[in-house]
Amino acid sequence: MELLDQLFRSPEVEISFSTRACLQGMLDFEGALARSEAKAGVIPSSAARAIAAKCKAELFDAPAVAQGAARSGNLAIPLVKALTAQVAATDKDAARYVHWGATSQDVIDTGLVLQLRDALKLIDADLAREMRTLGDLAVAHRSTITVGRTWMQQALPTTFGAKVAVWLDALRRSAGRLPEMRQRALVLQFGGAVGTRAALGGKGAEVAKLLSEDLQLGLPPVPWHTGRDRFAEVATTLGLCVGTLSKIARDIALLAQTEIGELAEPSGDGRGGSSTMPHKRNPVTSAIVLSAAARVPGLVSTMLSAMTQENERGLGGWHAEWEALSDIVRLTGGALHHMAEMLPRLEVDTERMRANLEATHGLIYAEAVSMALAEKIGKSEAHKLVEAACARVLKQRRHFREILSDDSQITKHLTPGALAELFEPANYLGEAETLVDRVVEQKMEAAAPPKRPT
Amino acid sequence: MELLDQLFRSPEVEISFSTRACLQGMLDFEGALARSEAKAGVIPSSAARAIAAKCKAELFDAPAVAQGAARSGNLAIPLVKALTAQVAATDKDAARYVHWGATSQDVIDTGLVLQLRDALKLIDADLAREMRTLGDLAVAHRSTITVGRTWMQQALPTTFGAKVAVWLDALRRSAGRLPEMRQRALVLQFGGAVGTRAALGGKGAEVAKLLSEDLQLGLPPVPWHTGRDRFAEVATTLGLCVGTLSKIARDIALLAQTEIGELAEPSGDGRGGSSTMPHKRNPVTSAIVLSAAARVPGLVSTMLSAMTQENERGLGGWHAEWEALSDIVRLTGGALHHMAEMLPRLEVDTERMRANLEATHGLIYAEAVSMALAEKIGKSEAHKLVEAACARVLKQRRHFREILSDDSQITKHLTPGALAELFEPANYLGEAETLVDRVVEQKMEAAAPPKRPT
Amino acid sequence: MELLDQLFRSPEVEISFSTRACLQGMLDFEGALARSEAKAGVIPSSAARAIAAKCKAELFDAPAVAQGAARSGNLAIPLVKALTAQVAATDKDAARYVHWGATSQDVIDTGLVLQLRDALKLIDADLAREMRTLGDLAVAHRSTITVGRTWMQQALPTTFGAKVAVWLDALRRSAGRLPEMRQRALVLQFGGAVGTRAALGGKGAEVAKLLSEDLQLGLPPVPWHTGRDRFAEVATTLGLCVGTLSKIARDIALLAQTEIGELAEPSGDGRGGSSTMPHKRNPVTSAIVLSAAARVPGLVSTMLSAMTQENERGLGGWHAEWEALSDIVRLTGGALHHMAEMLPRLEVDTERMRANLEATHGLIYAEAVSMALAEKIGKSEAHKLVEAACARVLKQRRHFREILSDDSQITKHLTPGALAELFEPANYLGEAETLVDRVVEQKMEAAAPPKRPT
Amino acid sequence: MELLDQLFRSPEVEISFSTRACLQGMLDFEGALARSEAKAGVIPSSAARAIAAKCKAELFDAPAVAQGAARSGNLAIPLVKALTAQVAATDKDAARYVHWGATSQDVIDTGLVLQLRDALKLIDADLAREMRTLGDLAVAHRSTITVGRTWMQQALPTTFGAKVAVWLDALRRSAGRLPEMRQRALVLQFGGAVGTRAALGGKGAEVAKLLSEDLQLGLPPVPWHTGRDRFAEVATTLGLCVGTLSKIARDIALLAQTEIGELAEPSGDGRGGSSTMPHKRNPVTSAIVLSAAARVPGLVSTMLSAMTQENERGLGGWHAEWEALSDIVRLTGGALHHMAEMLPRLEVDTERMRANLEATHGLIYAEAVSMALAEKIGKSEAHKLVEAACARVLKQRRHFREILSDDSQITKHLTPGALAELFEPANYLGEAETLVDRVVEQKMEAAAPPKRPT
Repeated sequence: MELLDQLFRSPEVEISFSTRACLQGMLDFEGALARSEAKAGVIPSSAARAIAAKCKAELFDAPAVAQGAARSGNLAIPLVKALTAQVAATDKDAARYVHWGATSQDVIDTGLVLQLRDALKLIDADLAREMRTLGDLAVAHRSTITVGRTWMQQALPTTFGAKVAVWLDALRRSAGRLPEMRQRALVLQFGGAVGTRAALGGKGAEVAKLLSEDLQLGLPPVPWHTGRDRFAEVATTLGLCVGTLSKIARDIALLAQTEIGELAEPSGDGRGGSSTMPHKRNPVTSAIVLSAAARVPGLVSTMLSAMTQENERGLGGWHAEWEALSDIVRLTGGALHHMAEMLPRLEVDTERMRANLEATHGLIYAEAVSMALAEKIGKSEAHKLVEAACARVLKQRRHFREILSDDSQITKHLTPGALAELFEPANYLGEAETLVDRVVEQKMEAAAPPKRPT
Repeated sequence: MELLDQLFRSPEVEISFSTRACLQGMLDFEGALARSEAKAGVIPSSAARAIAAKCKAELFDAPAVAQGAARSGNLAIPLVKALTAQVAATDKDAARYVHWGATSQDVIDTGLVLQLRDALKLIDADLAREMRTLGDLAVAHRSTITVGRTWMQQALPTTFGAKVAVWLDALRRSAGRLPEMRQRALVLQFGGAVGTRAALGGKGAEVAKLLSEDLQLGLPPVPWHTGRDRFAEVATTLGLCVGTLSKIARDIALLAQTEIGELAEPSGDGRGGSSTMPHKRNPVTSAIVLSAAARVPGLVSTMLSAMTQENERGLGGWHAEWEALSDIVRLTGGALHHMAEMLPRLEVDTERMRANLEATHGLIYAEAVSMALAEKIGKSEAHKLVEAACARVLKQRRHFREILSDDSQITKHLTPGALAELFEPANYLGEAETLVDRVVEQKMEAAAPPKRPT
Repeated sequence: MELLDQLFRSPEVEISFSTRACLQGMLDFEGALARSEAKAGVIPSSAARAIAAKCKAELFDAPAVAQGAARSGNLAIPLVKALTAQVAATDKDAARYVHWGATSQDVIDTGLVLQLRDALKLIDADLAREMRTLGDLAVAHRSTITVGRTWMQQALPTTFGAKVAVWLDALRRSAGRLPEMRQRALVLQFGGAVGTRAALGGKGAEVAKLLSEDLQLGLPPVPWHTGRDRFAEVATTLGLCVGTLSKIARDIALLAQTEIGELAEPSGDGRGGSSTMPHKRNPVTSAIVLSAAARVPGLVSTMLSAMTQENERGLGGWHAEWEALSDIVRLTGGALHHMAEMLPRLEVDTERMRANLEATHGLIYAEAVSMALAEKIGKSEAHKLVEAACARVLKQRRHFREILSDDSQITKHLTPGALAELFEPANYLGEAETLVDRVVEQKMEAAAPPKRPT
Repeated sequence: MELLDQLFRSPEVEISFSTRACLQGMLDFEGALARSEAKAGVIPSSAARAIAAKCKAELFDAPAVAQGAARSGNLAIPLVKALTAQVAATDKDAARYVHWGATSQDVIDTGLVLQLRDALKLIDADLAREMRTLGDLAVAHRSTITVGRTWMQQALPTTFGAKVAVWLDALRRSAGRLPEMRQRALVLQFGGAVGTRAALGGKGAEVAKLLSEDLQLGLPPVPWHTGRDRFAEVATTLGLCVGTLSKIARDIALLAQTEIGELAEPSGDGRGGSSTMPHKRNPVTSAIVLSAAARVPGLVSTMLSAMTQENERGLGGWHAEWEALSDIVRLTGGALHHMAEMLPRLEVDTERMRANLEATHGLIYAEAVSMALAEKIGKSEAHKLVEAACARVLKQRRHFREILSDDSQITKHLTPGALAELFEPANYLGEAETLVDRVVEQKMEAAAPPKRPT
């Protein structure tokens, strides 16, 4: 439903997955194949030129190719037929050499690899953009005191910068997996009918090498018609990326709740507004990312299930990949794009962060009090006293500090000054701030020249 | 990628999921809402007429709606805005009453229900078509002897009709689940912002009733904005249907293997042919169905995961449903359509079926021999003798019958005539044929008037 | 990891899935098979008695059966071997008739059906228990005013009873699907090696009928060795049930957040406490249910994927069902059990509900104000004024009512009295209360005698 | 159901996921924590010694811990309580320092990392074992002619070694992903309640460093309580591995079909036999691996879905990981183990391979004939002639070579000698053999010192 493409997808990644890009990917293979076979002396150079000249998506009737696919079971068969006709129209002799020695899956797989290469570049760029934004945000809020929450309950103080650093740290691992995956996934597919390149008359390996150079793709040791981990790893790697993004989105949605109000997605231009409830600020970007995170895991499981492919070229499993993988890339692209657009305008309400620290009437400092007391009277005794005091806070609806101040068993170990210090969140931040530094410094390192040559 | 729509989908179901149908579904809700509210005296009749007059998809600029959705987070907001503008152009006063008291999710959910209603009718029809074909096929091959296979090994004789009866029996259960699901899923959504219909000034229930009558949809006791089992059940029910189809497709693909050759998908029109391997008859329909079966389970898991929706209207989970559910319906529709088209032309090679019975050199009759012998000398003794004879078959590569005839320990219990009868597959079909009758008769019953009124 | 069984599972459902229950299920089949075959005159009555006498799980060495399964690929083969040995020990002749005419899958499938029958009864009971609790809760809080939230933002007032009614309504549909599913799933499996019951010498159908009566299971028209929708539907039906439960759990977790505090899971006995943060009340039951909801969808997708089974009895797909289906039943049982235990002690803080209505400084009444104003000056004009007023609320941090009272464009249409009424949430509840009534009454109906005979 | 553990799992990997190993993993964390905190001067050395002395799984009552987990929501809380009691029994003072400054998730996550480290070593070893076997098999059958099949139809000749080389090539990529994943996944978790290590009084970073050294785990820049890609990547990496294995298993099952008979799983010891059908050789190992492949993708999708964890420590998502991840590792371990055990005894029937080449009556040589003819008369003309000849093969049931020899349009371009050469499969193997060499040589390279230091 293209009606939803702008909502769920990235305009740039969509270009790599357009009808045109899909046809062009396959035609790029055919053009490069002809050139490589000419270089290797398998087909005449004139034929290669005639073929390459026709390898332009705009020359082809996409609906006719689509219709042919419904009969033949894939896009390559009707496209090759159409290309042959195109070439024959200007050079009948050259038409004999179209698709020489290749099989449909060579065209389709390599075409998809070319589309993926383009899309992954954009995904990289959006990831980099987000990492920059998060780095800046972490630094800006390195010391912004806020409450840490566990099991969806307030726990202890931390800083907002530390929260962001945890997001950034995970996102960086997502970015780090991409080159490893690309090295395995962005390779040529070229094997002929059963992977032996038998039709190439002994020149298969040479043509494969030239072809991989022409297309600037890795050259695999053997065809991988049924070795689908290459594509499945694209799926799993992006799945991990979307999962990581969704954690950020969930946090934003939670922190943007009316009663919490620490964050808000940007508004304006009818963005996230409600016509009947003008006070609402719907976290639309979070919704998009969470939606992607609900969808990508199921698609990844399809890619993994589809790996069980039969013999030299499979039945059904291969077909299942086409839309599943493209959906994964497009949904990931969309989630990244929308997040990258939104993050720089994320609104942070540091006052609400501070105010929310008071929601437990001081109980979030119980651990600090307990630890301080434990040093005097032992952990279990301290725990018992603090637990009782906490119970009184809840029953009497008074502030924990007041309760403690009224309790002689406490005050004989903790002076008013000591107590005051325990209720100062800045005193209980632990490494929240240095943790930001560590993550941000690591970024600097990562900005250094890459460690592994591709 | 629309390039693959004809391959993977049904032309008819696609119409229910076109951009136009999606817009029209929502507009049908808005038109019916206005009419119902006018009847209930909530809005003026003239306004209702003015609104209803504009509820035609062709009046709307789909790309503009799509663009608006990217900002607001759903399609209803920009569509309602556009509808309001359309109405205002002819009747400014009526424009005030557009979408009166409804929320975006009312429009979107009900619109989708209307699309589902159309699509499910087509799915029903294709299921019925397949059941008829399979019924005919089962009857035609009620007594066609073939080999039954378990664990992908030849086991014992059966009839091809019995195989088909098992397919049909399962498909019938799939068809039987549809009305149960429809009763729960094809209902009105109408609750206003938080499900209370507060904006209707006490007339909410009345409007809801009128609206459900106008749209001919079930009237649920309460809005189900976050009660998503209704839509998730559409997904699971179709998931079971595709799973059942995929069993048929797998069997066809297995039986169509070159070395087995008992079935073949129809050829002609470039269907399933290979340009370089003219002997091939690729089972394209099976590939399509198996591909759907690799994809739908993951999509179903998304629909189930997405059920965890928050509060009165959820974030992300709801969004995830839109494309996931539409993909499920479209893939199911496609699998059914292609299967329904192919099945009547499925080629059955009864000679190959008969010939394949000989592949084990008679060993598939070992159970029959064992049972016959057991009656004379007891089960374990019989088993021991037969096991030894079987070993000789494999070692000496001679026919089991010969081996047995040469074995005096066997021949003293089984006469040549008795042995001959044991090697006649028709004598070891058990209930294969009556099983066909039972399934086919049941179909007759099912054709009787439905038991439960909707 | 049994360490987690008590956390994630139901003690009662676990009994149905114990090692003993698994063995006993299969032995119940074998015993009933012998009895039925004796009745039909297929085997001697004395043999049947001898066999049935040994069909007791406690007589068998489970680890030895497990070890045998690793070699033979399923549990039935070693169990039948062990049973034969047991019978032979007392009656050598009877031992010949053990498992007569059946195949491993007959034993395993029917055994599992018997386990499912027990477990589904418990699941039914826990569902009924929860529906009663929710019914009571809905009635008790029929008029408890609280805020409705959409997109995780405050929207409009509703009642807590209405929230609960929506939970209950969805849960009731889950309960309603169970009998439909049971009718299809709880049936005998009995077909012999390839489903033809060839070894029964023409008495297969008779034995099957007697067997289904003995075990009190439905009698299917044909064996369903590869018609796996029966078991897959158990999975999808429970998947919908867990999804529905998870919506309740998510709501509880959200409403139990420190800053919201409207609900709390019960405490005591170290339940949900944190040793270092004594103020925390972790929603442990919600965590368990949400965890089940994260796991069951993937398991359901496995059951659907596994439906693609080959020929007369499949390879791999069948094996995949065993643990996947048992995991689904056990996780569902656990989620239901823990929820059923917790719900009656759920703590509802009606004061916090009331207080939270003020979190937007009156903005949640904007729709009501807008509607009231629209009646005087039209919808779009009203919307514009209200939107401007809302903006001032946010900027000036004053209450919406004050802002409106200061605005002469408002006050000339709305008197102070009219304004006051608009800010009374009880005036903007719509049908929240009658919606509770409708759902609760429906429950009464549902308590009437069932409509369809099983 | 432990009854199935031996069938589906690896005895060695099971040890890493036993109750004992789970408890010991957590206790190893506690012991190392105490030692590290003593080194850093946070707790007394005597306390550390007293604590470490009790960190032995055999001292603990597993059922009691399990029962405690049901109340507290995780295993760490009751285990820490029990450990504290153990320590207190001998050194009351030391008991105060148990679990000092850590949170439950630190214990549980790190404990699981330690279990994973052990299990991954075994997985590595089984992968290596399989790669060796496959390498030998590929070399042994480098030139064993067999037929290549695509879309489950015979296509062209290849060698069995080439098939195996494709398996090996994919498996090697699976092995190659493990160290990359391990580097990210096998790291310490240590952050205290909200990841700030606030309770460590400024010594958190130092303790973390010592702790990671003590446990020989990587030291992450920040805690990853809600950065779950580390564990999710274990899942996806093993998912890719199982997918790759399942392709091998499917091929074995297909090639072991009665009518094909090119491969057979080893028999003996009741392995894969059928009591009533003595001729059967069920591919039990393939069934186990295919079963794992049906289950792991759904479990991977759970791990990805569960990544959406809230705030500083999540609710439900974290809980979902425990059994899901352990199931993935155990199923992968089982699939690898059974495959590694079976592969060296896989039976290869080279005669059947050769015989099956004749199944198409020569049609698999159509491409070769077509290519040869194309050189004389052009591709399209050649294709037309060959297509017609092929049609006659099917209609007349004669061998393709005969048909061609009778066709003067063919014989005027191809001499009898030329035709004979075209029907020699060894002449149409393309690079099948060198492809084996390339893969096997690559293995040699991979045996060279690793490129990246861990």
